[in-house]
Amino acid sequence: MKSAKRPSDLDGLSDWTARVCAGDRRAIGRAISTVENGEPVGNALLKLLFAKAGGAEVIGVTGSPGAGKSTLVEKLAVEYRRAGAHVGIIAVDPSSPFSGGAVLGDRVRMQGLATDEGVYIRSMATRGHLGGLASAAHDVVTILDAAGCNVVLIETVGVGQDEVEVARLADVTLLLLVPGMGDDVQTFKAGVMEIADVFVINKADRPGADRVEQELSAMLSITPQPDGWLPPIVKTVATTGLGISSVREALGQFRQFGEKEGVTRRRREAKWRARLLSLLRQRLFEKVVTEGLSEAAVDEYVEEVVERRRDPYSLVEEMIEKAVNS
Amino acid sequence: MKSAKRPSDLDGLSDWTARVCAGDRRAIGRAISTVENGEPVGNALLKLLFAKAGGAEVIGVTGSPGAGKSTLVEKLAVEYRRAGAHVGIIAVDPSSPFSGGAVLGDRVRMQGLATDEGVYIRSMATRGHLGGLASAAHDVVTILDAAGCNVVLIETVGVGQDEVEVARLADVTLLLLVPGMGDDVQTFKAGVMEIADVFVINKADRPGADRVEQELSAMLSITPQPDGWLPPIVKTVATTGLGISSVREALGQFRQFGEKEGVTRRRREAKWRARLLSLLRQRLFEKVVTEGLSEAAVDEYVEEVVERRRDPYSLVEEMIEKAVNS
Repeated sequence: MKSAKRPSDLDGLSDWTARVCAGDRRAIGRAISTVENGEPVGNALLKLLFAKAGGAEVIGVTGSPGAGKSTLVEKLAVEYRRAGAHVGIIAVDPSSPFSGGAVLGDRVRMQGLATDEGVYIRSMATRGHLGGLASAAHDVVTILDAAGCNVVLIETVGVGQDEVEVARLADVTLLLLVPGMGDDVQTFKAGVMEIADVFVINKADRPGADRVEQELSAMLSITPQPDGWLPPIVKTVATTGLGISSVREALGQFRQFGEKEGVTRRRREAKWRARLLSLLRQRLFEKVVTEGLSEAAVDEYVEEVVERRRDPYSLVEEMIEKAVNS
Repeated sequence: MKSAKRPSDLDGLSDWTARVCAGDRRAIGRAISTVENGEPVGNALLKLLFAKAGGAEVIGVTGSPGAGKSTLVEKLAVEYRRAGAHVGIIAVDPSSPFSGGAVLGDRVRMQGLATDEGVYIRSMATRGHLGGLASAAHDVVTILDAAGCNVVLIETVGVGQDEVEVARLADVTLLLLVPGMGDDVQTFKAGVMEIADVFVINKADRPGADRVEQELSAMLSITPQPDGWLPPIVKTVATTGLGISSVREALGQFRQFGEKEGVTRRRREAKWRARLLSLLRQRLFEKVVTEGLSEAAVDEYVEEVVERRRDPYSLVEEMIEKAVNS
């Protein structure tokens, strides 16, 4: 009986799982925090929730700071709510009004959504995730999916490797551009342009919107499309809601295409492969470092390296040798 | 004799090490590529080079795209060259003219430096590094340090977790701001402002430079400085060279302060701790996945997860159990 969980723990977990699946907001919030903090019970909970998940469509929304991502996410959420869907929103953009990460930035504007029981909003810090931001976001999607969200919108800034990896969690990705923002088509990072399934030119009432559209079309016409999908370009003015229904249509078209052509399946395979391997990497490390190495031992190793008495490459080999043979 | 290296391999390695330490550009370039590609011999080489390194000052230069980082790096390199130093430059900015990563961006401008035997310039891709970009950059610094560079300048874009981690390799970090670029003080990510030891307001001949300086001073006056160092603000016009010698002075002042107050030592400890642990994580993973798991086995696991027959959390536990007991 040593290694068996006490019945009360298991009861507690299955009750917690049931409450998450019933959409209980406190249970959902606690599940996300538990997973974000890397608490061991989070792992047990995810095992149970995984079986309940798999129904949600995950939509990534990315673009430079100031492109209007939060406003577009808000309006898209309202649009999906009107169609009867339950909506989850994950903001991993540090400058997002959801996460309030900007030093003196604006604060939560989505007051309307916040009181809608059919919408669950969560912001995620971009730091401090043991297995990486993308891994943590992946688990949060699983929780919201199990909680009955039909659509999960993930807002990220379209810069940096982390954000690109978060975008890979999505079944479909929107990239926002804005006329006159300095993020012209030619200055965008190649890796960021490639993740877009739908381009949105937001603030399209500004001068220069047509030029951005032309440049984008020209670029897309010379870019190979490995999936056979030519990303459509949709113009919006998110603040007034103009073009939002066209964005939803474009997303629907991509979904149909993706399911028919196997793109969705291939992406889910790639996504789960990455998640499995990152989970393996993290758990192995925990097993060796958390269970096998004291803080004092690590301090000692660091001193040896800083004083250049030992090189880190040989030291690590020695550490692994010890861990595997212990 | 099975596991012993053949004498010719060891001879080759020690010859290669000697040539790197003598500043042989081909040997240095080949060492960096070997390490970047994760070839096993790179590890053996790093063990030898580590003992020769430790003398270089590592300077991080970060800021938004278009802030003039490359120009500042170029002018700083010239400044250090004049003082007789050997200079290494690592560009991990994908939009840098060194790395030529922008879709239609400008190309290498540092023609003058490229023909100077006392300067070694290397650009690094932001993707595809097995152990992460920061780890790879760390090893490249070790190589350039062993090769006799007294100063290593690392250029990164000040966005994203990767870039912040690369900046942590540096003994001292410059953050560039530009008037009227939209990256006002209040929109900067908290994590990015914190890494600056010296602020540079570049393009200071533009309108608004004084306002940026005032905002920055105001912000710094209310920001706790855990190391006891108040970051100075230097105005430059990098294209004309204005203010570059002041930047070098500010860097020198920080170095003196850091050595006296133990900041440099603490940072090096934190840097090597991070490197040791990431190396351990990577090597463990390689040992289990590369040596213990076939590609077909991974494919099979992925299918089980995508079809939701198994959850990834239990699967990984099973994989580790097998690996440790095999």
